[in-house]
Amino acid sequence: MTGAPAPVTPVTMASPLRPASYAWEATDEEVAERFGLDPSTVVRFDLNTNPFPPESAIRRLSEGSYDRPISEYPPSDYRRLVAAAATTYGVERNEILVAAGADEVLDLCAKAFLAEGRAAVIPGPTYAMFRVLTEQRGATVRAVTRRGPAEGFAIDVPAVREAARGAALVWLASPNNPTGLPEPNGTIELLLDGLTADTRAEPGGSPFVVLDEAYVEFVGRSLVALRHRYERLVVVRTASKAYGLAGLRVGFALAVRATIVRIEPYRPPGSVAVPSIAAVTEALPDIATLTRTVDRIATERARLASGLDALGWPAWPSATNFLLVPFGSAATAADIAERLLARGLVPRTFPADHPLADHLRITVRAPEDDDRLLAALADVGDSR
Amino acid sequence: MTGAPAPVTPVTMASPLRPASYAWEATDEEVAERFGLDPSTVVRFDLNTNPFPPESAIRRLSEGSYDRPISEYPPSDYRRLVAAAATTYGVERNEILVAAGADEVLDLCAKAFLAEGRAAVIPGPTYAMFRVLTEQRGATVRAVTRRGPAEGFAIDVPAVREAARGAALVWLASPNNPTGLPEPNGTIELLLDGLTADTRAEPGGSPFVVLDEAYVEFVGRSLVALRHRYERLVVVRTASKAYGLAGLRVGFALAVRATIVRIEPYRPPGSVAVPSIAAVTEALPDIATLTRTVDRIATERARLASGLDALGWPAWPSATNFLLVPFGSAATAADIAERLLARGLVPRTFPADHPLADHLRITVRAPEDDDRLLAALADVGDSR
Repeated sequence: MTGAPAPVTPVTMASPLRPASYAWEATDEEVAERFGLDPSTVVRFDLNTNPFPPESAIRRLSEGSYDRPISEYPPSDYRRLVAAAATTYGVERNEILVAAGADEVLDLCAKAFLAEGRAAVIPGPTYAMFRVLTEQRGATVRAVTRRGPAEGFAIDVPAVREAARGAALVWLASPNNPTGLPEPNGTIELLLDGLTADTRAEPGGSPFVVLDEAYVEFVGRSLVALRHRYERLVVVRTASKAYGLAGLRVGFALAVRATIVRIEPYRPPGSVAVPSIAAVTEALPDIATLTRTVDRIATERARLASGLDALGWPAWPSATNFLLVPFGSAATAADIAERLLARGLVPRTFPADHPLADHLRITVRAPEDDDRLLAALADVGDSR
Repeated sequence: MTGAPAPVTPVTMASPLRPASYAWEATDEEVAERFGLDPSTVVRFDLNTNPFPPESAIRRLSEGSYDRPISEYPPSDYRRLVAAAATTYGVERNEILVAAGADEVLDLCAKAFLAEGRAAVIPGPTYAMFRVLTEQRGATVRAVTRRGPAEGFAIDVPAVREAARGAALVWLASPNNPTGLPEPNGTIELLLDGLTADTRAEPGGSPFVVLDEAYVEFVGRSLVALRHRYERLVVVRTASKAYGLAGLRVGFALAVRATIVRIEPYRPPGSVAVPSIAAVTEALPDIATLTRTVDRIATERARLASGLDALGWPAWPSATNFLLVPFGSAATAADIAERLLARGLVPRTFPADHPLADHLRITVRAPEDDDRLLAALADVGDSR
């Protein structure tokens, strides 16, 4: 949204009924302008970022010189970054494709695997970009409804298998966003085996499966080893969430070589910035720091969840750095969102036609910010 | 090219006969490995980068803190960067779209304007990505041959007009790469007026025209004002060439608002890294530094061209930071490229089926690097 500030109202995920475009978040300044606030007091509870970036990355950036001058393009093979990612993720170097954030990975997968007239399966509610990218390719979305909160919003394996017949792609996310939990143990294995069995029974290749693991470090158990069991599996990883480096725009596709080779022709030669490469190369292998951050967020998530409980608005269980909170009705959720916005606290809302319209999604942030949120919610509760 | 080093041989632009993919450059390490060199001695004459990045950008990066923490996504409106670009480029803020380098701008234009089965006109030889992006959309390339070197490789306006009938997009570059000159005065105006006239004569909208001005600062005369004369014109600008900031990955689309609105739905919310935004926001308005760099490169280009002349290999005239040098035959060009590579000097070559297969393209670099190149060419000439 360039130029004049846009109306703030749609702080929402793209509606499932809207065509291929993404409703960008209102910026801090837009929120501040609308409510007469100082932009520096605005806190984003809507972007699922992590307020604890590693010191090593900040130090590396402040050196001001990197593996190559900033006047040169990034190396087309991202050699040192790929080596670091291979060690951290436990894959071969040639099983990695680097991109400008997980979002570029998803875009490249859409380009590589979806053509006009083909179909993609989306078990929702899930990350809004899956639908946007599918529609941008002129492909059809086959929406499959996830199970309810009592079952952790898990995918319905038989329904996904059925929808995947003849489809080119299945978009998965585990842990899933905005619902906050990984698939139950064995679920994705079951689905992949099912897809293999279904392919045997009918002609045509099995669908590619993109598994977005943007939040997997919070859970600790990646499914990347399944790439050998199902060769058309692409696992997506990012430096934006648990690593706390969203502003550097670095993401990865992990897959067997034969699948990486299908995506590579669509990859721009170098979309990741030279300083970003240096900082993420440094941060990726530092598992001690990562673990500390993940622990810190888990502790704070429990504290924030207790606070919400105490206010009478318990969140669904979450293994990630965000909480999905039901507010009983879409009107209540919208009303509370508006009152939080007026205090410079930006929650993620869902449009009226979204299955989670009666929910807000809230990022776990630093304790002082979360305290502001809890205090504001207490206030809101009192004044209702 | 991830993992094991690829064979170095195709240091080439994508062949016009190859399908939608881009032949990535061999990296410094790949060149060094093949010829038994120290990678730090490899010099890239193939990437048209500019070895003089502005001090202000380096200083800004080394501050280590930017407009927002690196743990947060870039602002979805890139507000301060857009304001700087509006001033520098002389357009309204809402006539700007920011992307991760000109390459992402081109990709977004392909997404917005090309659909499967539509056609794009490409007057070539030109930037290889135009064809790649067109084919990736499932659209058809209508290739139009440019005039010869005696006419500065200018576009053939009547031929482009003819090819543009019913086409969705025309890809232009001025100054053109790899030929090095801007279109002669009035040529693009003539084409745009022609496209308007042709549209009047037949039903259907006129084609969008993407004008890549990646090298325009070396010439000093942007055609961005033509967006009012032809509303479907998109002018592409970049921080990668004259600004010397290729490693930061920042580019811009400039167009009237109605055209920007057509591209915006395809733009990812934030693909440009937070440190890159800070550094480019600082560098863009510093026209004094830009002018010094452009002058420095013009002086060095003249010196390099004289050196090539003296060796009996005169380059075609160039207004940019690269020279296109004819070597008489494809075999000679390939042989000389190989001998330069063996000394760690990497020229841009063209595949055997390319109309410029008998040429090499050589970036103007710092005097000491250009001296190495001239000395190597003198050597090569002696030993032939």
